[in-house]
Amino acid sequence: MHRAAVKKVVLEGVLDANDALAQANRTRFDAAGTYVIIMMSSPGAGKTAILERTLDRMRGKLRLGVLEGDVQTTLDADRLARFHVPLVQVNTDPGFGGECHLDANMVRSGLAELPLDDIDVLIIENVGNLVCPAEFRVGEDTRVMVYSVTEGEEKPLKYPLMFRSADLVLVNKLDLLEHLDFDLEQFLANLDAVNPGVERILMSARTGQGADEWCSWLEQRKTR
Amino acid sequence: MHRAAVKKVVLEGVLDANDALAQANRTRFDAAGTYVIIMMSSPGAGKTAILERTLDRMRGKLRLGVLEGDVQTTLDADRLARFHVPLVQVNTDPGFGGECHLDANMVRSGLAELPLDDIDVLIIENVGNLVCPAEFRVGEDTRVMVYSVTEGEEKPLKYPLMFRSADLVLVNKLDLLEHLDFDLEQFLANLDAVNPGVERILMSARTGQGADEWCSWLEQRKTR
Repeated sequence: MHRAAVKKVVLEGVLDANDALAQANRTRFDAAGTYVIIMMSSPGAGKTAILERTLDRMRGKLRLGVLEGDVQTTLDADRLARFHVPLVQVNTDPGFGGECHLDANMVRSGLAELPLDDIDVLIIENVGNLVCPAEFRVGEDTRVMVYSVTEGEEKPLKYPLMFRSADLVLVNKLDLLEHLDFDLEQFLANLDAVNPGVERILMSARTGQGADEWCSWLEQRKTR
Repeated sequence: MHRAAVKKVVLEGVLDANDALAQANRTRFDAAGTYVIIMMSSPGAGKTAILERTLDRMRGKLRLGVLEGDVQTTLDADRLARFHVPLVQVNTDPGFGGECHLDANMVRSGLAELPLDDIDVLIIENVGNLVCPAEFRVGEDTRVMVYSVTEGEEKPLKYPLMFRSADLVLVNKLDLLEHLDFDLEQFLANLDAVNPGVERILMSARTGQGADEWCSWLEQRKTR
């Protein structure tokens, strides 16, 4: 169909432009010696709650910075302001009715507000979405996906690109497991089916379960 | 920026084409006397679980049909097959790395498999996503949003277009409320802030709470 063909070509052009800008971001991160993690998940899986716990525990151990992406509001940045780390909120709403993901240019615009030279590890929190964020590289070193056990076992099969592109999966809200009909073994088998052997940490941002393992993983990034 | 401007024009073209196809779907629904509901939510909010309960309860009362949208797999259609209602699964993965929403043309392709004349109410389950599905009309009469209380109170403010476009919000997973730090009153206030007075039903697909109210709402659609 002609409409679909036109659309595909244009979007490929968008991805090419994105990759060039991602490379420019990458050059800036390398120059500053900043390791960059992008966090992706569904809405409400617990990215910001994990960041709160992380910033609290890593105080004095690792110089963290945060770039928050949301369609609208500065609510997430407001939640994290009390930790006094370099922090910027990027809103995607000037786009097409609100872009559903961060792209390299949006990240670039946020970097102007961050003192990269003083940041060991920058965590970029993407818009909550299991599809499009996986398509857009922003210059990151690694991709961390947050998955909530409330979302069901089958999502790796239904959204394979996202799960396949993750380097680490934080399986969150483990404290709710006893109240759900969620088969953790089946979820991990589905995860391995699309991304065999991918690193995973079972955690609960609420209770602190898994936070040691996650923070230790994070500290090891500094030396990379 | 030039790139953004080009993108916007092209996407507006896509939306124009979508609206024309949505109108064509609408004409078919009207000719068949089928009332059409589109269901939207984040991944894992419980759309399919609500459909399971609905199809079970409405057996013999209302001739329901279902069009399932997912990036990949027929898992949702497989889950619903036991109810023996007209059912079709549309996968969006032939698109740009997996489209993150159903559009009018995808729905049109699914309609070929459905006996519309024998369906009083057709429920279309969109891809799990809080952004893009709100942009694409598919010819529906009404929009029902499913929201899980595990997703946090602030999402109406962060994803306002989706919440504003809903005609009814099913607030799901109420059975988990006692295990969460979720302020239901605050959520409802945030919902009213972006969509004042929108109809809402508090429910749990798991326990059946709210199912009477939802099924009664659904039965009333038949006579519209």
